[in-house]
Amino acid sequence: MPASRLTDPAALFEAARGGDQASLARLLSLVERGGPRSREVAGLAYTTPGDAYTVGITGAPGAGKSTLTDRLVTLARQAGPDGGDRVAVLAVDPSSPYSGGAILGDRVRMPSHALDDRVYIRSMATRGHLGGLAVAVPNAVRVLSSVGMPVVLVETVGVGQQEVEVAAATDTTVVVVNPGWGDAIQANKAGLLEIADLFVINKADRPGARQTRRDLELMLDLTELGPWRPAIVETVASAGDGVDELWATIGRHRDHQIEQGTLAVHRRQRLEREFRQILAARLRELTDGVLAGGGVDDIVRVMLDGEVDPYEAADRVVDRVMPSDPTAPSDSRD
Amino acid sequence: MPASRLTDPAALFEAARGGDQASLARLLSLVERGGPRSREVAGLAYTTPGDAYTVGITGAPGAGKSTLTDRLVTLARQAGPDGGDRVAVLAVDPSSPYSGGAILGDRVRMPSHALDDRVYIRSMATRGHLGGLAVAVPNAVRVLSSVGMPVVLVETVGVGQQEVEVAAATDTTVVVVNPGWGDAIQANKAGLLEIADLFVINKADRPGARQTRRDLELMLDLTELGPWRPAIVETVASAGDGVDELWATIGRHRDHQIEQGTLAVHRRQRLEREFRQILAARLRELTDGVLAGGGVDDIVRVMLDGEVDPYEAADRVVDRVMPSDPTAPSDSRD
Repeated sequence: MPASRLTDPAALFEAARGGDQASLARLLSLVERGGPRSREVAGLAYTTPGDAYTVGITGAPGAGKSTLTDRLVTLARQAGPDGGDRVAVLAVDPSSPYSGGAILGDRVRMPSHALDDRVYIRSMATRGHLGGLAVAVPNAVRVLSSVGMPVVLVETVGVGQQEVEVAAATDTTVVVVNPGWGDAIQANKAGLLEIADLFVINKADRPGARQTRRDLELMLDLTELGPWRPAIVETVASAGDGVDELWATIGRHRDHQIEQGTLAVHRRQRLEREFRQILAARLRELTDGVLAGGGVDDIVRVMLDGEVDPYEAADRVVDRVMPSDPTAPSDSRD
Repeated sequence: MPASRLTDPAALFEAARGGDQASLARLLSLVERGGPRSREVAGLAYTTPGDAYTVGITGAPGAGKSTLTDRLVTLARQAGPDGGDRVAVLAVDPSSPYSGGAILGDRVRMPSHALDDRVYIRSMATRGHLGGLAVAVPNAVRVLSSVGMPVVLVETVGVGQQEVEVAAATDTTVVVVNPGWGDAIQANKAGLLEIADLFVINKADRPGARQTRRDLELMLDLTELGPWRPAIVETVASAGDGVDELWATIGRHRDHQIEQGTLAVHRRQRLEREFRQILAARLRELTDGVLAGGGVDDIVRVMLDGEVDPYEAADRVVDRVMPSDPTAPSDSRD
C-alpha cells in the first residue's frame, strides 16, 4: 500500500519516521480532530518520545513572530542546537483558515521554505476541541518529536491565555516585543514576563528600542528570577539582523539548562501538566455524559427557582458520579 | 455590632442590601478569595438573585474602555435601562495592583465618581484561584445583583480568553475598537466578533473611523447572525460624544431581548454554564486530592519511562476515583 493511503497510526508513524510528510500530516490531523484515534496517535508518540528541542515564540499580533520564525528555520536547517537539520514549525492559530492540514496553505505562511522538504510547517486551530489547544498542541509536539524532528518551533499567533500557555510549554520560550512606549508593560500584563526565557525586541531599528530594553530590564529587576536571567536580544527580522545572536542565545539557554539539570526537571513538570490537562478533559467528558439526556435541564430548573445554588447542584452530580469521595477528610468541613 | 465588624455572610448581605459598602466589599473579598466561605456567599447570592441588568465592556488595552465605563456610570446614575440609580462597576483585571478590595485604589480608577456613594467600583484579580475568573466573576455579579444593584457594568482590562468569556457572560456585551487599519480584524481574531451585541468605535474623531465601520459591517455580513444585528456606535468617550446614543442602544438591545423572549433564554444558558464551571472546578479539586501525597510522582515516573501514555494514566486515576463509569457505553469503543 502506498504511504499516502495508510490509515493505521502505527504504520503512519513508520512512514513519517522515514520522512513521508503526507503520513506526518495525517497523524497531526488525527491529533487535531480529537477522539479515540487521536488518543491512539498520542499514545504511540508518548511512549516513543524522540528528543526534539522545542522553542516557543509568542508576542502580540504584528510583532513579527512569523518573520522571526522563518529566519530561525533557516538557521536551524544549517545547525540547530542539536546540530539537527530537519525542522518543524507548529503555528498555533485559533482563527486560521488553514486548519485541517492544508499543506499548501501552511506553506504559504513561509514562502522561503515552501520547496524545502526537510522543513515541515503546520497550522493548528482546535477551537472547541475537548481539552482545547492545551491538549492538542502538546500532543502534536510529541508526534513531531517522535518522528525524529530535532527542532520544533511553536509559534503562536495571538496572546490569548491558552496560546501563552502553549508557548510556555517549550524548552525555551521567546517573547517578542516591539520598540515603543508601553509594549513591555503590555507584555507584562499579558503574563508574558513570567514565561519568557528570552526577550526579542524586534523591529529594533525603530525609535524606542533602548527604552523598551530599559523597561524590560527594570521589570526583570523587580521579578524574582531563577538561576537564568532572561536574555534580551534586538533583531530586525525583516533584514535578518540579530537573528544569529537570537539563535545562539537559544542554544546558550539550552546549554545552561543542561548544565544546571533544569531541562529534565522542566520536562518532567510539563509531562505532569499535560497529564493533568488530559485527566481534566476526561473528567469533563464523564460529567458531560452524566449531564446529557435531560439531567442538566432538571438541575437548571431548580437553580432558576432559587431552590439550589450551583455549588450544591455540583455536589449532587459528584455524588452520582462517585458515590464515595476518596479525598473526603474525616473531620467536618467547617 | 457595627456593620463594619460583621463577618457572617447572611448578616453582611443584610447590611449590604441596606447600602453599606463596607459589607458589600467584604462579601466580594470572600468571593475573590475562594474556599468554603466564598461558597456560602455564592449560595446566598444565587438563591436570592435580584434583577441586575448586566453590561460587559471589552476590547484591546488602550481602546478607552475605562473612560467609556466612567461615562456610562454617569448616565446610569440618571436613568438606567431599569430606571435604576445605583450602579456597580466590576473591573476584571488579572494584573491589577488593586486586588483584594482596596476601595480607595478602585475609586482612583474613576475619579469623577469617587465621592458618589451610590456608585460601587471594584477590581477583581483572581489569577490562580480555583476555577479562575470564570467562577469568581459570575459569583461577584450575582452578589451585586442580590444586594439590589439595578445595573452592573463588567469592564475587562485585557482580551485574554477568560476575560472575553467573562465579558460575554452579560446581558449586553459591548466590544470597543478604535479607528485604524486592522483593528476590526484584530477584534475578530480575538473572538470578539461573535460575542458582540454592540460595537463601539471609540476615538471616532481619529482618521479611519469610516473604514473601521465598513470592516465591521462587512464582517457582520459574513457572519451568521441571530435576530439581533449588532449595532455600531461611534463615540469620543473623552469628550462624551456618542455616549448617550450608546446608552440608548444598550437599552434598545435589552428591550429587543425582552420582546423576543431571548433574555430569559440567555440567562438560563449562563446559569447552566456557571454551574458547569463550578462542577469542573469541583472535579479538579477531587482529582487533585487523589494525586496529592506522592500519587502523581509515581504516575509521572512510569510515563517518563515510556511505559504508559498520559491517556492511559488518566484512565487509571478515573478508575480509582469512580470504580464504575456511569457513562460507559455498553458496546466496544472501536
